[in-house]
Amino acid sequence: MQDVTFPGGFSAWGLSSGIKKNGKPDLGVLVSEPPAQAFAAFTRNAVKAAPVLYDQKVSDSGAKVSHVLVNSGNANACTGGRGYADVEAEVAALREAAGPAGAVMVSSTGVIGEYLPMEKVKAGIARLFAPGAKASASPFVHAIMTTDTFEKRAERALTLDGREVRLGGVAKGAGMIRPNMATMLAYLATDIGLDADYRAAFLACVERSFNSISVDGDMSTNDTCLLLANGASGVRYAALSPEGRRAFDSALRDLMEDLAKQIIRDGEGATKLVTIDAVGARSDADAKMVCQAIANSPLVKTAFFGGDANWGRVLAAAGYSGAELVPEKTSLEFCGVKVLENGGRAEYLEADVAGRMKAKDVWVRIDLGLGKGTWRYWTCDFSYDYVKINADYRT
Amino acid sequence: MQDVTFPGGFSAWGLSSGIKKNGKPDLGVLVSEPPAQAFAAFTRNAVKAAPVLYDQKVSDSGAKVSHVLVNSGNANACTGGRGYADVEAEVAALREAAGPAGAVMVSSTGVIGEYLPMEKVKAGIARLFAPGAKASASPFVHAIMTTDTFEKRAERALTLDGREVRLGGVAKGAGMIRPNMATMLAYLATDIGLDADYRAAFLACVERSFNSISVDGDMSTNDTCLLLANGASGVRYAALSPEGRRAFDSALRDLMEDLAKQIIRDGEGATKLVTIDAVGARSDADAKMVCQAIANSPLVKTAFFGGDANWGRVLAAAGYSGAELVPEKTSLEFCGVKVLENGGRAEYLEADVAGRMKAKDVWVRIDLGLGKGTWRYWTCDFSYDYVKINADYRT
Repeated sequence: MQDVTFPGGFSAWGLSSGIKKNGKPDLGVLVSEPPAQAFAAFTRNAVKAAPVLYDQKVSDSGAKVSHVLVNSGNANACTGGRGYADVEAEVAALREAAGPAGAVMVSSTGVIGEYLPMEKVKAGIARLFAPGAKASASPFVHAIMTTDTFEKRAERALTLDGREVRLGGVAKGAGMIRPNMATMLAYLATDIGLDADYRAAFLACVERSFNSISVDGDMSTNDTCLLLANGASGVRYAALSPEGRRAFDSALRDLMEDLAKQIIRDGEGATKLVTIDAVGARSDADAKMVCQAIANSPLVKTAFFGGDANWGRVLAAAGYSGAELVPEKTSLEFCGVKVLENGGRAEYLEADVAGRMKAKDVWVRIDLGLGKGTWRYWTCDFSYDYVKINADYRT
Repeated sequence: MQDVTFPGGFSAWGLSSGIKKNGKPDLGVLVSEPPAQAFAAFTRNAVKAAPVLYDQKVSDSGAKVSHVLVNSGNANACTGGRGYADVEAEVAALREAAGPAGAVMVSSTGVIGEYLPMEKVKAGIARLFAPGAKASASPFVHAIMTTDTFEKRAERALTLDGREVRLGGVAKGAGMIRPNMATMLAYLATDIGLDADYRAAFLACVERSFNSISVDGDMSTNDTCLLLANGASGVRYAALSPEGRRAFDSALRDLMEDLAKQIIRDGEGATKLVTIDAVGARSDADAKMVCQAIANSPLVKTAFFGGDANWGRVLAAAGYSGAELVPEKTSLEFCGVKVLENGGRAEYLEADVAGRMKAKDVWVRIDLGLGKGTWRYWTCDFSYDYVKINADYRT
């Protein structure tokens, strides 16, 4: 499978700089030639890591981006002024080593509250750009992983105006994921040409993908979703027909949804991917609130782990979500079996639902019977392993 | 230790009616003679169980209450019109069996979405009031337990105007607890005389006790906190000096805090009681939001289980709480050791904190450095057993 280097003009690679003590890759770079129009969404946590603060400025400046430097093993979060200076030093080191044609962005993921080992990082940056380094390097996607157990990659290709346009992406996730992008990094690339005014469409895609997933309801200090569009295909979005634009929008959303679901499938300790559909809500915002409450309820998540179609817990979560809800109008389905109809227990066979709940992919559909608001959300179950992974993380 | 029957004029007992299949007590009654002024707080979940809907009407009527009937093993929630009719039938059966002098309230806790086995319940009510039944009965507190592993009781006595005033209470909890009183039932009794205008003071006590605890962040359909004041001591609150009133207020809040903490100590799978203090917030409401976010974060809770003073996770949770927070002004202590000062890592010995984190009772104190808002909150850690209990509950 292809990844973020699938579209024309992108390359990416990584190496082990020694930030991670186990010798695994921990430093990577994504390069766009020519420099790309950048679209970014960051964590909404009031506590933002130094690289997020730095990237926000780059993003706000509107500068075209040629290099994105990413490290794992250390989040450079809660590191104050020294942490920010470290980001500037990383950028300076990259400028010296690579002579970038555009702006530089930086992301970090890993342990919070420890300073970056700058000697190792600087030496790593120099090695990234040494002659022959790219050829013998590790995949970029390996350099961004923390507790991830598999690589998250996706690609799409479509023909627009008779020419091929490509999209590709990589992501990392695992724990601390929820709307607003907890320790989640996603890098998306496309060789279409996008103007700055595509920002609203990009953010809408983020809302329906990376901001519609939850592993544990926590939100990190470092989350970043970045889309780079370098125009290398020669196709410009602004010059497309309405159908062509819709086709691109749809491919981008599809790519982002694909990566978001891979993150959930690899949720810490996850054994199931749970899709939650809320329909019939008073508004889309209400539907999203219902999805979030269900997706973040530990009682619901442990019930899924146990293969239990516990609709009482789902309904209770919807009830405290803050969304308008009238029990007598609410219906619920588990994996296609209606279990609750207009607030009362539906006729169904426990064995039928229980059988379907054993699958790896399960779903819940709640119909609030109040309006036209809808939302789709993905979460995972809560297992013994979630507790194990997170009780022992630093030890 | 005494309980809800400690104050004058109160009696309470229970028996096994067969709702629970294991033969444990599942039906109980609390009686006040004379009938008592009642103060009630109910779940804010939009999905309210039938007995909650019924009790709200009784509470709104202002009627004095003489009997409270409680069952465990079945929540009579999501049972629609039939569930409500069942509550009315329970009250009718009690009226026939006991000829109550005041109004009747009803609570249920247990499995959601199943109808009460009314034949068993009615027979149980008749047996509750049969001659000699009270003498050979089970304790009331046993009849209200579900996954609780120990009884929650508390009592206080104080001398006001030269006479003894007593307060007592019982509670049940375990899982699905959070502010706004998830499957939590608490019955408080006092023999002081309170007028209806004590309601605001009662609700303020609920806010700082039962609404300041969290096991898993879920909120149930049945939560009820009820205070009955029957005046049997001959002391009237309205006739007390300001000091006397303060003494009573303080004893009531203390009693409620005591019971609330017992619920957390018995949280499903809990191995630690975690006290969270937020100070220096812009407002009390902000301080409470910070406490809630920390208390409900699965990442924080699993870190406590692992004895890990993971201040990054605590700070990240505070950061997404919605409260105003400036990292550079924020400080954090774990069990008395300052780990974060003005947003930067403080000087401390990991071994020192790690040693203190092994205790059964641990605490976190976050100072936002912004204002005078404070809140205290209690939660427990998240263990393997939490997952086990909740994955297997219905099977």
